[in-house]
Amino acid sequence: MWVQRAIQFEPRPRGFHLVTKEVLEALPELGEVSVGILHLLIQHTSASLALNENASPDVRRDFATWFDHAVPEDFAWTHTLEGPDDMPAHVKASLLGPALSLPVSCGRLALGTWQGVYLCEHRDHGGPRSLLATLMGE
Amino acid sequence: MWVQRAIQFEPRPRGFHLVTKEVLEALPELGEVSVGILHLLIQHTSASLALNENASPDVRRDFATWFDHAVPEDFAWTHTLEGPDDMPAHVKASLLGPALSLPVSCGRLALGTWQGVYLCEHRDHGGPRSLLATLMGE
Amino acid sequence: MWVQRAIQFEPRPRGFHLVTKEVLEALPELGEVSVGILHLLIQHTSASLALNENASPDVRRDFATWFDHAVPEDFAWTHTLEGPDDMPAHVKASLLGPALSLPVSCGRLALGTWQGVYLCEHRDHGGPRSLLATLMGE
Repeated sequence: MWVQRAIQFEPRPRGFHLVTKEVLEALPELGEVSVGILHLLIQHTSASLALNENASPDVRRDFATWFDHAVPEDFAWTHTLEGPDDMPAHVKASLLGPALSLPVSCGRLALGTWQGVYLCEHRDHGGPRSLLATLMGE
Repeated sequence: MWVQRAIQFEPRPRGFHLVTKEVLEALPELGEVSVGILHLLIQHTSASLALNENASPDVRRDFATWFDHAVPEDFAWTHTLEGPDDMPAHVKASLLGPALSLPVSCGRLALGTWQGVYLCEHRDHGGPRSLLATLMGE
Repeated sequence: MWVQRAIQFEPRPRGFHLVTKEVLEALPELGEVSVGILHLLIQHTSASLALNENASPDVRRDFATWFDHAVPEDFAWTHTLEGPDDMPAHVKASLLGPALSLPVSCGRLALGTWQGVYLCEHRDHGGPRSLLATLMGE
């Protein structure tokens, strides 16, 4: 069984956002998969996906603080045409990665208790973001 | 062909640990797959998986040194309730990622000569860790 | 449908290189896949794959500058037998990751407009690099 679906995310502020529920609501077929994989690709180069703590908003804020510190806007960037937040966004996006492959088991995402899907918006005004979801399994 | 199996890892000290052999021993069905993918997810937010040098323990120690330096405990964290090693562990876990997809070829993991699977334990006392392995192929 | 193929890349200088076209040329079967996933693994521990901006060479140069700064050769490394560029290469390789899973849709890679596959060469003289491509789908 293969299902592929585009999911559109509304613009979000720069930061780390929990989107597990939104992803699942777009994929009702997941409930019919006994064993499988859900693959998610964010089709952008300045936003990314991650899988981390789904409870405390502190964790998501601390993610933003650390990434802003480690990949600062004030650096020896040469690609600056699109603004000071652009090149750091590209690097952050590749550190976290554009895709997630998540196991599906008995009609549910088989994540750990504390794991949730993050949409990581690295631009100040990133606009809407497109995700392509590919579900495979039996 | 789809096989899914939970693998439990005993508690390990903070650091980078080679677990290729343990993963393979838990999946005898891999020997019957001519072409496929083995997907591994660590179901935690403060430990991760990586694929790197399988020979020298120096490499794994240097990984730990660099990650402790780049994501220090002494930082502007706000999520500190679970101890000083907790928030750095979340960030390290997402830098390395919670999952690996590895090709299977002729009944074997088709890795490079020097590649091995690392369990990256980022907590001081992380306890046992759960992995969910999903094997697909023909 | 499963296809698996080894792709050999000629030696490239240290840095970030766009290889989308080369990967696609090696996989003519991709044109027959209506929904699927292309999995790519670089079978080395000091080179990696990434998915980022496919237009400006500035972006790829800035990637190299940031990674050289964040994972410097002058650090408390103990694994130095293979030269000062070796241990940083291992860490960079794991930060970016050895594999990519990319969705296939209607016979094409379903990437965003600006996304391209990078071969990230972290060694000064990395030599030829082997990629194993696994294509699955229907």
